[in-house]
This record gives sequence, C-alpha cells and structure tokens, in this order.
Amino acid sequence: MTKIDVFAHVLPTDFYNRMQKFDDNLLAKNSYLQNDVLTDIAKRKSGLDSDVKQVISNVNSNPEDYTDAKTSAELCRLANDELISMVQDNDMFIAAVGMLPMNSISDALDIIDEQIAKNKEMIGVQLFTRALNKPIISEEYQPVFSKLNELNIPIWLHPVFDETRTDNNIVFSWEYELTQTMYDIVKKGFFEKYPDLKIIVHHAGAMVSFFSQRIKHIMSPTEYNDFKKFYVDTALLGNTKALELTVDFFGIEHVLFGTDAPFGIIPYGATNEIISAIDYMTIPNYQKDMIYHKNFENIQ
Amino acid sequence: MTKIDVFAHVLPTDFYNRMQKFDDNLLAKNSYLQNDVLTDIAKRKSGLDSDVKQVISNVNSNPEDYTDAKTSAELCRLANDELISMVQDNDMFIAAVGMLPMNSISDALDIIDEQIAKNKEMIGVQLFTRALNKPIISEEYQPVFSKLNELNIPIWLHPVFDETRTDNNIVFSWEYELTQTMYDIVKKGFFEKYPDLKIIVHHAGAMVSFFSQRIKHIMSPTEYNDFKKFYVDTALLGNTKALELTVDFFGIEHVLFGTDAPFGIIPYGATNEIISAIDYMTIPNYQKDMIYHKNFENIQ
Repeated sequence: MTKIDVFAHVLPTDFYNRMQKFDDNLLAKNSYLQNDVLTDIAKRKSGLDSDVKQVISNVNSNPEDYTDAKTSAELCRLANDELISMVQDNDMFIAAVGMLPMNSISDALDIIDEQIAKNKEMIGVQLFTRALNKPIISEEYQPVFSKLNELNIPIWLHPVFDETRTDNNIVFSWEYELTQTMYDIVKKGFFEKYPDLKIIVHHAGAMVSFFSQRIKHIMSPTEYNDFKKFYVDTALLGNTKALELTVDFFGIEHVLFGTDAPFGIIPYGATNEIISAIDYMTIPNYQKDMIYHKNFENIQ
Repeated sequence: MTKIDVFAHVLPTDFYNRMQKFDDNLLAKNSYLQNDVLTDIAKRKSGLDSDVKQVISNVNSNPEDYTDAKTSAELCRLANDELISMVQDNDMFIAAVGMLPMNSISDALDIIDEQIAKNKEMIGVQLFTRALNKPIISEEYQPVFSKLNELNIPIWLHPVFDETRTDNNIVFSWEYELTQTMYDIVKKGFFEKYPDLKIIVHHAGAMVSFFSQRIKHIMSPTEYNDFKKFYVDTALLGNTKALELTVDFFGIEHVLFGTDAPFGIIPYGATNEIISAIDYMTIPNYQKDMIYHKNFENIQ
C-alpha cells in the first residue's frame, strides 16, 4: 500500500551552505542537523521501504534567525527552488512544503503567490509556533494566514522552543509549545476569521486529544469544535493506543501519516515503528488507507 | 461495585475560616473555591451515588502562601485534624490525605510522624508541583520525600501554576506543570534515591502516556522505566480511549479511580462521566475492579 509521509524533513544543500556562512558553528549548535540522512538522498533512500513516499519540508533552520529581511527572502526562495528540484529529481519525494521569511511579510506573501501557488511540487508552507521568538499568531504575521486561507494552501505547523524559558526539553516542552499555539489559534478565532484554513499539526496534535474533555468542559462549544478542525500527523514514534485516541478526537479524515523522518530514531527516523503502530490499530483497513494516503490526497 | 475516588477535594470549614483572616478576598481571588460542595457535606452526598466513597484532600489553598512558618504549621495541623474528623463523621469518606507546611520542613516532618503515620484515617500527604513557587523537587524539600519513603507513605501529586509565567491556562499549562514535575522527579533520580516512594499523579499522569515513545527514544532506559513507577488517577473528565492509553503505559496495577470532585463539571464534579468512561473501557471486569478499589487497597 502506498504510504505518503506528510512530515519528513530535509536540508537542501545549497541553502545549507549559504546558512553556514552566517554561523560557523551552525552544525555544532544544532545537533539535530548532524544527520547526513537530511542531505544524503541516496543514503535516505536505502533506509526506506519503496512504498513510502515523502512530502519534504526544511528542517528547523530559519534564515530570519540569522540575517536581514532581504537576505532571508532570497534564502527562502533559494531553498524553495531547491526543494522543488529535489521533488522533480527523486521519485521517493512526491511534494514539498515551502519556507517563508517571517522577517519580511511582504516577501512571504510574494513567495506564496510566486513559488507556492504556481508550482505543482509545492503543496503548502511550513510555519513554526514562533518566528523571531514571537508567537506565530501575532498580529504582524496574520497577513500570511489570511493569504493562505484565500488561496486554500495548507499550513504545516511545527514546534520551536520559547527561548525565554529555562525549563525547555525536547520530550515535553516541545509538545507543550505546539499545544499552546493550537490553543492560541482557537482562542484568537482564526477558524472563524479564516474559514478555509487547513493546518496540519505535527506530533498527532500534541496534548489535545488526551485532554479533549478539559477543552470541552472549560472552553466554549465553538472553541471545542474548532480544535477538531486541525489536521494532525502520526509522529509519535509508535504508540498504537495514542494513535487510536488521536483518531477518536480529530476524526479519521483528519489524521495523516507523518513521521518526522529522519528524526526520532537514529539514523533514518521512526518510519517503520510508526507504520507498525498504525498497522496494529483496531480500525478497518479502508481507514488505514485514509491515514496512509487518501486524506493527504483530499487535503490538496 | 464499590468505587473509591482517591482524588476528591474538600475545604475544611475551620481551616477555611482561619485562612480567610489572611485575605478578605480569598474567595474572590480563587474562583474555584466558590463551590459549596467543597464545604457542604450534605449537599455533596446528595449528588453522589452511594457506592462511591471518597478519599479527601484539601483543595489547592496552602497556608505557606499567606503566613509565616509557625502559623502555617499550626494551620496544617488544624486542617489535618479536621480532615480526620470528617472521615470519622461521614461514611462517604473512607480516608484523608494530609497537608504539610512547606515553609517549615521541620514541622512538616513532625506532622508526618505525628498526624499522618499515627492516624488510620490519614493515608498519605498531598504535595503540589511547587511550594512557594519553587519546584517541589528542590533540595530544601527533599527531607519530606526521604521521610515519606522511609515510612512508606504515598504522595498525592497535584499541579499548581508557575506564577512567573504569562501563558498559564487551566486547560493545558496545568497539565504541563504536572508533567514537568514528573520529568524532574525522574531526572533527579528520586526513584533510585527513594526506592519505596509511591506517587499518585493527578489527571492520569498528564502528558506521559501520550508521549511515552518520546520518553523511550530520547531519555535513558532507566528513566523510561522510572516513569512507569508513578501511580495515576483517572481524572480526565471522561475519555475512554485516553484511559485505555493510560493503562497501556502505566500498567493496570498503577491506575486508580480518582475524579477531582467536585471540580470539572459544576457543581458535583465529573464522577459520573468518569465512571461511564471506565465502564466503556475494553478491559476485563476484574481490571475495572482494580481501578475502582483494589489498587487503592494495595497501595496503602
């Protein structure tokens, strides 16, 4: 069965070489970049079953954290072109998710029009829970949401740490940041303001399905209902019961196979563990088909 | 079937009257205290099925946040005596969990010896994730853990907000604080230092079971195993699938019926919703018995 991994990361080589010029220690400071499966596509392919196809997005490494608006925009365009080429050149990649320079919203809007909307290889944009350590729901970033809503282009939502905090850890804080952004999106009424917004949330929607009845009894019925509008992936490194809970809350149409490859389990990622966890789910096979590829085909 | 709710809150009246003297606006500032089911036992009883018995603990309202060490100790002793009387006077209460003054550790240790260990009505102590806004795992609080380990007295672990934060909300931050304390307890090696420690964590162990495979693949095997040593309650306001996931991770022996009554659903709490969620779980009846009372009987 074809399996489309909607949340797989790469590091486009030309883009990376440019980024390194801003900081010699880029690699040393960000240990997660020290994985050659991010850049070595032949090695990546050798570790992956042939029925798995990936939708690629850039690994967490954003020009706006290193350079000015003009250069950031230039680098995002470069990265997006490279991602498009990677899809064209490798049959294991079936689509790409673009980057936006969040320190230059006018460029971000142009990139959506020029690179995202016009290339069939580009099917969405990746946004992080914060840009320049400001919440992604901040007023200044909202033109991006508005434009994506207007053009019906989905968002891939990825966590980053709040750098002002001292208790950050990749096990739980990471997931809390993702959850709080979902909370803010709902609280700010984004789904009412931008009714065609499609947001694919990493890590199975983080804390939402486990605490769904807190949402129900503490927040409003509209807010509870808005949480169900998110789409989520399956990137929990396994955990069949958690995936069943995820489907229980978000609904089978809103759960898409996604692994966070090559992260989680060194060096290729947790693709096999996640497939195994989905295969063990007590749902009918046609619903597994929906998770593995049909929901993705419907979201585009 | 007898059902023992291990996590139910009350507000002992004499204690409350004393606390009000420190702050006229205690009630106004803490809206969760504005629920007469906390103090009115007859009303409480009228809202509860007769097969449900409660283990009572004081609602989140701690003298150390309002007064000095000596007065805090005096107030905790008063509250504990009152909790004991409430158990003696009401057959719906089968045991109580004591309070400790965390601004006077020597008094806390005395109270454990004199009130907790010596009264059959007192079966444990409630600790909050922070005391005086310092993490409960701080060095200065460790004599309490050491003593409880030595006497084999269980801890009821309850969340509080980190007051230095600006993004607190009762839906998710509350659960994050609880999770981070579990993380700190494991990271600090409490289960190795205090091998007989029994900790009953509110809200089904918060984020742990949903993200168990992150723990497994990011932390050490010892740390992963230590997370399984926590006991947890069922206070999720329902959510059968989440409870199944909880049992899947913590093991059936470590899940105890607990509701957070009278909180969650106004005015009596979510007792019926949680019973209904447990009844729908796809586990055999003898395992439901374990959740409802046998695990509690074994933990004492």
